[in-house]
Amino acid sequence: MRRTIGIGVIGMGWMGDAHSRSYRLVGDRFRARGVDARLVACADVDVARAEAARDRFGFERATTDWHDVVADPSIEAISITAPNAAHLAIIDAAIEAGKHILCEKPVGRTPAETLRAAELARGSQVVTFVGYNYRWAPVVQHARDLIADGAIGELTHYRGRFLNGYAKDPNGVLSWRFTAEQGYGTLSDLLSHAIDMAHLLAGPIADVIGNRQTFIPSRPLPRAGGTHYDTAGPDDPRGDVTNEDYVGALVQFEGGAQGTLEACRVITGSQCDLAFEVHGTTGALAWTFERMNELRVYRRNDAAPADEGWMTELSGPAHPRHRNFNPGWATGLGFDDLKVIEAAEFLTAIATGARAVPSFEDAAAVARVQQAIAASWASRSWERVAPAQR
Amino acid sequence: MRRTIGIGVIGMGWMGDAHSRSYRLVGDRFRARGVDARLVACADVDVARAEAARDRFGFERATTDWHDVVADPSIEAISITAPNAAHLAIIDAAIEAGKHILCEKPVGRTPAETLRAAELARGSQVVTFVGYNYRWAPVVQHARDLIADGAIGELTHYRGRFLNGYAKDPNGVLSWRFTAEQGYGTLSDLLSHAIDMAHLLAGPIADVIGNRQTFIPSRPLPRAGGTHYDTAGPDDPRGDVTNEDYVGALVQFEGGAQGTLEACRVITGSQCDLAFEVHGTTGALAWTFERMNELRVYRRNDAAPADEGWMTELSGPAHPRHRNFNPGWATGLGFDDLKVIEAAEFLTAIATGARAVPSFEDAAAVARVQQAIAASWASRSWERVAPAQR
Amino acid sequence: MRRTIGIGVIGMGWMGDAHSRSYRLVGDRFRARGVDARLVACADVDVARAEAARDRFGFERATTDWHDVVADPSIEAISITAPNAAHLAIIDAAIEAGKHILCEKPVGRTPAETLRAAELARGSQVVTFVGYNYRWAPVVQHARDLIADGAIGELTHYRGRFLNGYAKDPNGVLSWRFTAEQGYGTLSDLLSHAIDMAHLLAGPIADVIGNRQTFIPSRPLPRAGGTHYDTAGPDDPRGDVTNEDYVGALVQFEGGAQGTLEACRVITGSQCDLAFEVHGTTGALAWTFERMNELRVYRRNDAAPADEGWMTELSGPAHPRHRNFNPGWATGLGFDDLKVIEAAEFLTAIATGARAVPSFEDAAAVARVQQAIAASWASRSWERVAPAQR
Amino acid sequence: MRRTIGIGVIGMGWMGDAHSRSYRLVGDRFRARGVDARLVACADVDVARAEAARDRFGFERATTDWHDVVADPSIEAISITAPNAAHLAIIDAAIEAGKHILCEKPVGRTPAETLRAAELARGSQVVTFVGYNYRWAPVVQHARDLIADGAIGELTHYRGRFLNGYAKDPNGVLSWRFTAEQGYGTLSDLLSHAIDMAHLLAGPIADVIGNRQTFIPSRPLPRAGGTHYDTAGPDDPRGDVTNEDYVGALVQFEGGAQGTLEACRVITGSQCDLAFEVHGTTGALAWTFERMNELRVYRRNDAAPADEGWMTELSGPAHPRHRNFNPGWATGLGFDDLKVIEAAEFLTAIATGARAVPSFEDAAAVARVQQAIAASWASRSWERVAPAQR
Repeated sequence: MRRTIGIGVIGMGWMGDAHSRSYRLVGDRFRARGVDARLVACADVDVARAEAARDRFGFERATTDWHDVVADPSIEAISITAPNAAHLAIIDAAIEAGKHILCEKPVGRTPAETLRAAELARGSQVVTFVGYNYRWAPVVQHARDLIADGAIGELTHYRGRFLNGYAKDPNGVLSWRFTAEQGYGTLSDLLSHAIDMAHLLAGPIADVIGNRQTFIPSRPLPRAGGTHYDTAGPDDPRGDVTNEDYVGALVQFEGGAQGTLEACRVITGSQCDLAFEVHGTTGALAWTFERMNELRVYRRNDAAPADEGWMTELSGPAHPRHRNFNPGWATGLGFDDLKVIEAAEFLTAIATGARAVPSFEDAAAVARVQQAIAASWASRSWERVAPAQR
Repeated sequence: MRRTIGIGVIGMGWMGDAHSRSYRLVGDRFRARGVDARLVACADVDVARAEAARDRFGFERATTDWHDVVADPSIEAISITAPNAAHLAIIDAAIEAGKHILCEKPVGRTPAETLRAAELARGSQVVTFVGYNYRWAPVVQHARDLIADGAIGELTHYRGRFLNGYAKDPNGVLSWRFTAEQGYGTLSDLLSHAIDMAHLLAGPIADVIGNRQTFIPSRPLPRAGGTHYDTAGPDDPRGDVTNEDYVGALVQFEGGAQGTLEACRVITGSQCDLAFEVHGTTGALAWTFERMNELRVYRRNDAAPADEGWMTELSGPAHPRHRNFNPGWATGLGFDDLKVIEAAEFLTAIATGARAVPSFEDAAAVARVQQAIAASWASRSWERVAPAQR
Repeated sequence: MRRTIGIGVIGMGWMGDAHSRSYRLVGDRFRARGVDARLVACADVDVARAEAARDRFGFERATTDWHDVVADPSIEAISITAPNAAHLAIIDAAIEAGKHILCEKPVGRTPAETLRAAELARGSQVVTFVGYNYRWAPVVQHARDLIADGAIGELTHYRGRFLNGYAKDPNGVLSWRFTAEQGYGTLSDLLSHAIDMAHLLAGPIADVIGNRQTFIPSRPLPRAGGTHYDTAGPDDPRGDVTNEDYVGALVQFEGGAQGTLEACRVITGSQCDLAFEVHGTTGALAWTFERMNELRVYRRNDAAPADEGWMTELSGPAHPRHRNFNPGWATGLGFDDLKVIEAAEFLTAIATGARAVPSFEDAAAVARVQQAIAASWASRSWERVAPAQR
Repeated sequence: MRRTIGIGVIGMGWMGDAHSRSYRLVGDRFRARGVDARLVACADVDVARAEAARDRFGFERATTDWHDVVADPSIEAISITAPNAAHLAIIDAAIEAGKHILCEKPVGRTPAETLRAAELARGSQVVTFVGYNYRWAPVVQHARDLIADGAIGELTHYRGRFLNGYAKDPNGVLSWRFTAEQGYGTLSDLLSHAIDMAHLLAGPIADVIGNRQTFIPSRPLPRAGGTHYDTAGPDDPRGDVTNEDYVGALVQFEGGAQGTLEACRVITGSQCDLAFEVHGTTGALAWTFERMNELRVYRRNDAAPADEGWMTELSGPAHPRHRNFNPGWATGLGFDDLKVIEAAEFLTAIATGARAVPSFEDAAAVARVQQAIAASWASRSWERVAPAQR
């Protein structure tokens, strides 16, 4: 007997599309889990976008008011893919209405809002889930398993990064992403992924000190009706970028490992380089999203040092959830497949009542590290990460 | 105004699933093309498989008789993903019924059957299409464009291969793939992809001489009700493998390039290494499906020889059709995305009446090379590839 | 007319051998420079080592007293490859005697001693030179030229590291390298190379904050007559490691680039990973000593974004000084070839009177960064690097 | 007690320099073997070249007549690095005079001459040795050991190649290398290395069929006094290239492995890509001279298929003879180090009387494969390799 879960998606941009598409595929890709999504409603303030998404993905209806979605009794679970500034209000209402939530990151506009969201969820029965999609690469999950099984010994070093050039054009417009009123810049948008990955693999971070830089100090003002991706001429009127392009940090993990975290949105040479390199006393692991289907593994081989080296494992049926996409050979997955896994994990948690990971608690853990890094910008000294409140 | 095309899929194994899934996604992924698939019927001799596929993908009905699919007036296009031995009869009937055909490779059980299928299609109005999916990787299409634009000059060398270990376990059962009565082995299953890729990139092949080997001469007899992927014990009763595990060939292209083609199904060390390396007078290109989102490009730089080298291009929005999957950064596609492109190209050709590529004519071109290679096994001498009949 | 320079080498361990071997090859490898070395005397406190080196490399004589070398009028230039603690005294005497000096790094036992050595040299006429050999890889010199020529625009990011596992065995003995009385640990031994490389490529460092860790807190006490490379049993008597295994730092360059520096001597997975990744507004460069003959280069290609990517340049005759080793194709150099280049540059500076780089001034620049990092360990805050005194 | 061997070198071009330099380093690099070279005489028809080499490497005397070298009683061993056409006469005289011979490849101007050289040596007591230097890379020797130890099981596939662009400029002059009177082209110059490597790793070749092509059919005539590396204008007078630029071959090994061999001297994209990929029933190995310090190793891991993949081993102290260059970490060797190993092996064989490998017998084995390939060009059919005559 299969279980069908009614879905609403709020915010029909690129991520809203990705969530909608993913839900449609869960019943196929994760057939054995017995869960299907029913696409009930999609919402966007732009009526054309809402209706286009309805037609494209087969939602039963479209709306311009997210309250409609939250209020709909046929909807059990919602995806929040609206602009960050709107998240907390939707979360609040959704929890109130008892809807399960899959929220894109960052959960709140600010780390403080994320902590508030986690607090709201803590007292409720709703399943919360966060769009840290990169964790779901089968070889990343395998990396986590290897570490948990002691394959690389006690962790000593961790280097995490998310180097991306999406904003490297100095004539890309001054969208909300570049203004401090709308939240942090790279600390929020990119470093959050790197912090979550570090938590997944190496556990809690104890102490941090951070650096930041804004390499492109001004950008052309956006035109009415434009999109995030617009560019303007170098002589068009410009405004100040008021949050950071770059964040670097030294980190110390509770478990004793030492490391660095870095992220940038204006770098040249890296395209989507969310990556980690983690070393332990008996081995090491390395991965980058730019080769998301490959895990590099190093194992000490004291018995035969001539045969020691970095091994490249291709994502294949022996790695977690790969088989749901390709049961046969090592044929790689794509980015969107990670979003399908995410949707499947969310719906499975709803159906089974099992603990969902990554939940708002995991987002709160990221937020506390972000707060400590931001504090170190002001103090110019090491800062301790606040403890979890549970 | 969108155009909806009724679809039937015949043969609901792994490939039948892949085709069904792909059709569902065309209207979303290739939204601007204005074509949608309506999944009308799926067929499989095994009723349980047929019904499972119906439920999983949302076909309107399931059947155990492929003639039902061919006869259905609400079906405009069919996918043939049944066992190879059944292809020609279905093709014949489908052409007779005026159905457009997307056929998995090999089109016929033998090269001769493939030539017959092309002949049947030649006199009809149906759109034919073949599942040479690897060509659709955005960076492979880009490679073709670079060659066509003269970016690497006049072609001189081509090395193509498809090295795969799917049958490397000597205790994998003696399925139909390993018997000469059911057709060639690796020449049919794997080298066909390598030949098609060579045709795409380097044009027609003029002369060949081939080698072959069966490394695993016997395999356990399959048990009733088993699958292709079963294994047995080394002491179970065995039968002879009667077709080739390995094919190697020297090739000369009509355009003057010299090269090699190789394929194997029992190799260790290669997982899904469909690959090419092509050199011209001013540059070179290299690709392997094991890193399907990367094209390696070499350009002579006589003006600055210190700055010459192999460049790795990550599949991104600037490469053909990548944008349909990821409009933003260089986030890679997966294998199944190639099948979605294939389905979209097929449906677009039906909707627009444009010439479809790769059609049965392209499969016939592959078949003629296969025949020449097989002839050289007997003659132990160079053989000329037969000319196309149009 | 060729110029012959009399040479003395002090300290005949691995590095003393390397220097001696290199001097012998200068007249051959750098024939056109017209300089030859005459190996006059080698010194080591261990008479057997001194005599073995004499026989092996063809020194005219061997001695156990370095003062003999400094006093010898037929010696114009000396290499100091003795233990670090002995360097400053030898330097002082050598400068007094007017001998040119090629000193292995670190120049002084401590950064303060290095600054003192630079001060002594500043008032003299001697040519000083330092064994930062990694800079001499032809593709590293090419990287420097590319940056100087603006090929990657204005620098924005720099990640430097020297990750090495030479001390990763917890039962490797507690040699002088592991005791604070003999100087810093990894900050001195490994990070010095990474700092010098950063200076070469990205210019002066303005501000730093550092981290450190000792992962292996105790080691077996060495046995009399043993070597640095001895190991003992886990139950043998142990002593405390009193300097750092690991150093990490955030750095800000005077030119505005932001970055990280890291080094470790006990890491698993990296063997001799002295490496840099440097990004600018229009490109990026990356290199690691583990592939010392390859420079990775990224150039923005806004005109053809489909053809942008990382290019791998193989060290070849078009790169600086490669031709002295291989005039023909791109056949790689080895580590020891870098020491030959170093010796050639040193002797050429003596012969021509041109300014030598890297000199004690460059070592002093490294020492000032080391001092600032060490200060930040105590203050737990950002520290400014002291200005050069000239 | 050390043994000193008197050396003569005949032909002072690039290779004569390389041999001279290598002999000088044997006593240092392979100290423990107790053998030293004494550079007695060098010969070149060009007196200036002979004298320059004498001065550069410290030969006791220079001569323009190779007979002087062969006749010199203080010379025990000679290197033949003269033009190929002169080899056989020198070999004949040297064997007559009882001199041990290290001959650059090809040993004879033609395969037939090489077979004759082997025949001459067979009846004598002289040690013969051939300059197949690529075998000496420590990781290549390790590859051979792994195969011999069964690490990759029974060999099934071998792909060997030597792709090089040294002659890719169509305006490079028509030197002796391009004329059939002086011998084969790429079959002699480059494929010989690939055949020797195949023999080393995979044993004797039983059957072959080859292809060939001359991509650049004419070249400018050389000017008097010019060198091999001269280029001319496209409108200068040209002559025909009368031997092959490219050779391809299918090969069957006596042991059952199937494979391909390819070589080209005018390819774009490959610089010095002497390479092999060899697969067996339980693993695979791959190497290219372009990364000569890295061996790629694949081992089946049926017990943990998630942890199977290609491993990259960096040349290090655990690999054969690496320690003679770098006793410590994995710091790579350069091309010239391979020539030092070669010289050391040659001198050691002389000193110890042990069997030398690769000797003229190994060159003869290469020559027989070359003859079979050339025969197949004429017959257009498979040819059997002639058996060894011993």
